[in-house]
Amino acid sequence: MSDSVQRIGILGATGYTGRELVRLLVRHPAARIVFATSESEAGQPLRAIDRAAPDLTLVHAAEAPLGDCDVVFSCLPHGLSLEWVERAVEAGPRVIDLSADLRVPKADAPAWTRGAVYGLPELHRESIRGARLVANPGCYPTAAILAVAPLARAGLAGTAPIIINSASGATGAGRSPKRHLLFAEIAEDFSAYAVGNVHRHLAEMRYQVGLAAQGKAPELVFTPHLAPVRRGILQTTYLPLAEGVRPADAIGLWREAYANEPFVEVLEDRMPTLRDAVDSNRVSMGVTGVADVEVPMLVLVAAIDNLLKGAAGQAVQNMNLMCGLEETLGLPC
Amino acid sequence: MSDSVQRIGILGATGYTGRELVRLLVRHPAARIVFATSESEAGQPLRAIDRAAPDLTLVHAAEAPLGDCDVVFSCLPHGLSLEWVERAVEAGPRVIDLSADLRVPKADAPAWTRGAVYGLPELHRESIRGARLVANPGCYPTAAILAVAPLARAGLAGTAPIIINSASGATGAGRSPKRHLLFAEIAEDFSAYAVGNVHRHLAEMRYQVGLAAQGKAPELVFTPHLAPVRRGILQTTYLPLAEGVRPADAIGLWREAYANEPFVEVLEDRMPTLRDAVDSNRVSMGVTGVADVEVPMLVLVAAIDNLLKGAAGQAVQNMNLMCGLEETLGLPC
Amino acid sequence: MSDSVQRIGILGATGYTGRELVRLLVRHPAARIVFATSESEAGQPLRAIDRAAPDLTLVHAAEAPLGDCDVVFSCLPHGLSLEWVERAVEAGPRVIDLSADLRVPKADAPAWTRGAVYGLPELHRESIRGARLVANPGCYPTAAILAVAPLARAGLAGTAPIIINSASGATGAGRSPKRHLLFAEIAEDFSAYAVGNVHRHLAEMRYQVGLAAQGKAPELVFTPHLAPVRRGILQTTYLPLAEGVRPADAIGLWREAYANEPFVEVLEDRMPTLRDAVDSNRVSMGVTGVADVEVPMLVLVAAIDNLLKGAAGQAVQNMNLMCGLEETLGLPC
Amino acid sequence: MSDSVQRIGILGATGYTGRELVRLLVRHPAARIVFATSESEAGQPLRAIDRAAPDLTLVHAAEAPLGDCDVVFSCLPHGLSLEWVERAVEAGPRVIDLSADLRVPKADAPAWTRGAVYGLPELHRESIRGARLVANPGCYPTAAILAVAPLARAGLAGTAPIIINSASGATGAGRSPKRHLLFAEIAEDFSAYAVGNVHRHLAEMRYQVGLAAQGKAPELVFTPHLAPVRRGILQTTYLPLAEGVRPADAIGLWREAYANEPFVEVLEDRMPTLRDAVDSNRVSMGVTGVADVEVPMLVLVAAIDNLLKGAAGQAVQNMNLMCGLEETLGLPC
Repeated sequence: MSDSVQRIGILGATGYTGRELVRLLVRHPAARIVFATSESEAGQPLRAIDRAAPDLTLVHAAEAPLGDCDVVFSCLPHGLSLEWVERAVEAGPRVIDLSADLRVPKADAPAWTRGAVYGLPELHRESIRGARLVANPGCYPTAAILAVAPLARAGLAGTAPIIINSASGATGAGRSPKRHLLFAEIAEDFSAYAVGNVHRHLAEMRYQVGLAAQGKAPELVFTPHLAPVRRGILQTTYLPLAEGVRPADAIGLWREAYANEPFVEVLEDRMPTLRDAVDSNRVSMGVTGVADVEVPMLVLVAAIDNLLKGAAGQAVQNMNLMCGLEETLGLPC
Repeated sequence: MSDSVQRIGILGATGYTGRELVRLLVRHPAARIVFATSESEAGQPLRAIDRAAPDLTLVHAAEAPLGDCDVVFSCLPHGLSLEWVERAVEAGPRVIDLSADLRVPKADAPAWTRGAVYGLPELHRESIRGARLVANPGCYPTAAILAVAPLARAGLAGTAPIIINSASGATGAGRSPKRHLLFAEIAEDFSAYAVGNVHRHLAEMRYQVGLAAQGKAPELVFTPHLAPVRRGILQTTYLPLAEGVRPADAIGLWREAYANEPFVEVLEDRMPTLRDAVDSNRVSMGVTGVADVEVPMLVLVAAIDNLLKGAAGQAVQNMNLMCGLEETLGLPC
Repeated sequence: MSDSVQRIGILGATGYTGRELVRLLVRHPAARIVFATSESEAGQPLRAIDRAAPDLTLVHAAEAPLGDCDVVFSCLPHGLSLEWVERAVEAGPRVIDLSADLRVPKADAPAWTRGAVYGLPELHRESIRGARLVANPGCYPTAAILAVAPLARAGLAGTAPIIINSASGATGAGRSPKRHLLFAEIAEDFSAYAVGNVHRHLAEMRYQVGLAAQGKAPELVFTPHLAPVRRGILQTTYLPLAEGVRPADAIGLWREAYANEPFVEVLEDRMPTLRDAVDSNRVSMGVTGVADVEVPMLVLVAAIDNLLKGAAGQAVQNMNLMCGLEETLGLPC
Repeated sequence: MSDSVQRIGILGATGYTGRELVRLLVRHPAARIVFATSESEAGQPLRAIDRAAPDLTLVHAAEAPLGDCDVVFSCLPHGLSLEWVERAVEAGPRVIDLSADLRVPKADAPAWTRGAVYGLPELHRESIRGARLVANPGCYPTAAILAVAPLARAGLAGTAPIIINSASGATGAGRSPKRHLLFAEIAEDFSAYAVGNVHRHLAEMRYQVGLAAQGKAPELVFTPHLAPVRRGILQTTYLPLAEGVRPADAIGLWREAYANEPFVEVLEDRMPTLRDAVDSNRVSMGVTGVADVEVPMLVLVAAIDNLLKGAAGQAVQNMNLMCGLEETLGLPC
């Protein structure tokens, strides 16, 4: 085995995110999966997830050889993840936590979590490179923060709240059998949920937008929707501008901010649709002014694949950075 | 034939709206279709649209016996409709125009269009009762105006624009074969269009909201989306409140405004989804406050069936009113 | 209450079939629901299923006033239904069992089941009229038996087996949350199941085809598929003809057999698609000869709505017959 | 340019098949696209199809530098392709024709077509290696022939016809705008077409099955269906066995025939679904006996991606063979 091949462990490999991570890592030229866990499917072959996977058997988390890895990913559910991430950190490997547990610093957080870096490379690339522990962003926050940060950083956001109206495919809701996720319920339907700013992802968005603003951050209003598609998030973002700022003054911010980003594209002449991002690690965005309003406003539409740039793809991007590999290695673009 | 049975003519019966109108009128206890036109399918039996239809053959508009009807509906395309509506008005019957041609009064409009009433019964019921010519609202405007009018009328809207974020099923885009409407293009995709306040339905929304406001109307920002469903519109509406108005002061406006409306329901404990409105003439809505914002805001989610309350159903509701029939007659609720 | 209005009880009202039955009976001019049961949703209002429902609360089956009804429907799961149907029969009302429990006579069946009539009106109308207990056919068997019976009765089936290749929408698999029924699993997929003649519906098909054949019945090979649609069954049936029989000799059998049937249509010039049957109680079929084969064969394509003609609609058709009402009353066609 | 990199031309690059071929070749380590044509989109950049494509502009076929290529693919429509394939052959490159024009030898075919090899590697690998002109199989025939050939070759097929019941996604019907292919028509529908053995793909199936049988070939009855999915074909195949042959005698034929095939998998314990094949160049199949029939029969279910193994993927597999490259190079498995 070459020195540069990372030995990988995956905690929680059989949810939609875990399965996507397996598919990416199986094809990653500098990764070798050494264990993958599943409480519900322990004993099954990893090849049931991907035909090209190594000949491994899914094990219970309690049996995982955490110390034999260079990198451990946790795709365990929020709440449950924390305990296993702690064990993994203690066992030595670099750790990437895809749960929400470490994304927002808490006053009473245990000492071992202090070095956790928020794994959004477009904002925190250098910190990620040196990190031993990365909190991988949520799917909605990835699109939201990348849409809002350039405006917040430039201090050009207005006083009216930024509206983040997002629609996600059903894989974003997880693989546990629930009635409202049945095909016969979702097909031909479309729904909003957590209406009124009550989605747990808001804390993460606010914290990162606050960092970007370096001072008074714009307020956010966020409404997620469930769309009858398997994958992808389409986010329509309404960005009021500060007094005296014209759309033309701000419209170039995103192209500038992301000019050298391998996984962000800013379209020139049209808005992205899900198709522009699904099956890739790309964030595709377009931005335009709003006609006929007194207070100037931009609308930014962004598309990502919730399982790739919104979860497993971004996790691999973080792994690449942490391990000194080419950032785009093994990622579809 | 009983005196109360209306003789009906349909101009443009083979688009999605026309076909839905045929289905409603075939089952309407006080309607009898006497002609239906189609330029592309002239010569075909009306029963190809609905097995229960009378034994009629689709004719060219030029052959339609306009004068033999009590009511003529035009489902012709925008632009083309105007000429035929004029002929129908001249021939004597009451006319309901489902195109956009007469929805917003124009300074240079010909004299015969002056009496046109905007056919949104919840706002203009009495005028519709006496009308000879009704401009049937667009699908997006129906949901938008019903969401905004109670707030505008009460003068409680803030100065920041109202954001109207809507998603429509594919029947809203018409039945003409276009590449971007193919199944293989729309399935598993989701897209925004006319981004930046450039959709032609805005004029209609603004005009009606202006009437409701009786003074300074709130600004509107409208973004339509195409969802991979056949029917239905789900609209998520962000309503900033005037300074000093708390959510609790305004949240009861919709229940009050629509308390006696047969086709509007205001849900108490949840938000509607498409399923609450599709296949009915109902507008289903829910409203809630927004947490953690300085300037108070409400979010209102509304669902309609774009072909029923958003088109053919509302047209029949207007016909019922114009002809002195029970308003709900022949309409699914 | 008029004498002709039937007092109705529904056991198991919250599965897809039960809910569809509620919707039909709420609009049925000669029915009045007096109770509806649900083990999982007891205590909820019936109006959560249908806004137009009477103001009733869902109760546990054990609390159902079976004796207060003229007709009791059981939509309980196979196996569980038998016990409740027995109680209902003993309590006095006419009973329609939508489970599979009574569809095929068994040697060791208890005495009270002896009078059960198979509720396929096109084959057993007169027996249904006089029945106190009806076993409502399964969804796949309804389409299969109606496709095969005319040929079997005429004695024109060949010796090679009849192939019944069917695809059903997801509501046919029930409303219990199961992983393989999630939207993210079924969308963009299509699958066969119970391949190799192992589906439990075969017994029912064979028994009825045997009755129709009045002697040696043709063999059946049946493969069900799960299609990514909400409702409907499309069945493609391959019918080898007896030696010496030409397609032209047999092709008229279905039109003849179903000439006076209110809910069967035999198309002349095309094959039906799901759209021809969904949301109606109709069986829509088309039949054609097969070119270029030595042993003559017909192909018959049939479409039904699995929740209507395949379940709740047929149950109401049976109720109408049992109670001396117009057979089509309250049924969409 | 390395000797081993093939210079590629694509005639007809903007249909669904052409676009898929572009995507494959852009990522193929031994291919370099030198031109791509489109009559409807000439002048557009190739990168509109794939962001990773070389910086080329789509040209009209008449402007294509056919002679500058090592390999030319034609994805032109049936009928139109023949003329351009002839020009390409005359210009020197190896040619792979994805149209139906050359798949079945015709008595009156022009001399230049004589060397055309049918590009199904599992049956004709050696001939493909030496070929200058390959007729790439149709999507339905690929699945059908691979399902039937092992049985035909072994001489174990019965006298009753083999039934091939297939369902394809909408990309199989092409990218030209047609009303019956609109999302609003196909969603929630499912339909059979070309019923009665009248599909043009039958000739190709019969010809190849005849070659495999080396004598009396089994008869075929083929019914294609249109499923509401974007990609994939699921084929359910009913295989009557010769007299005296038991299922156990024949069931191992497919595993044996395809033991060393890189793109065919024979599942042991379940049937494939579309998901097993979509986005890969794999044919996934399962086979089982049929219970309770007098004449023994097997049922074989096969899944392919209509755009990959059913079109562009198989074309690249053929290119690899013709050019002496690793057969699996650049193909998803």
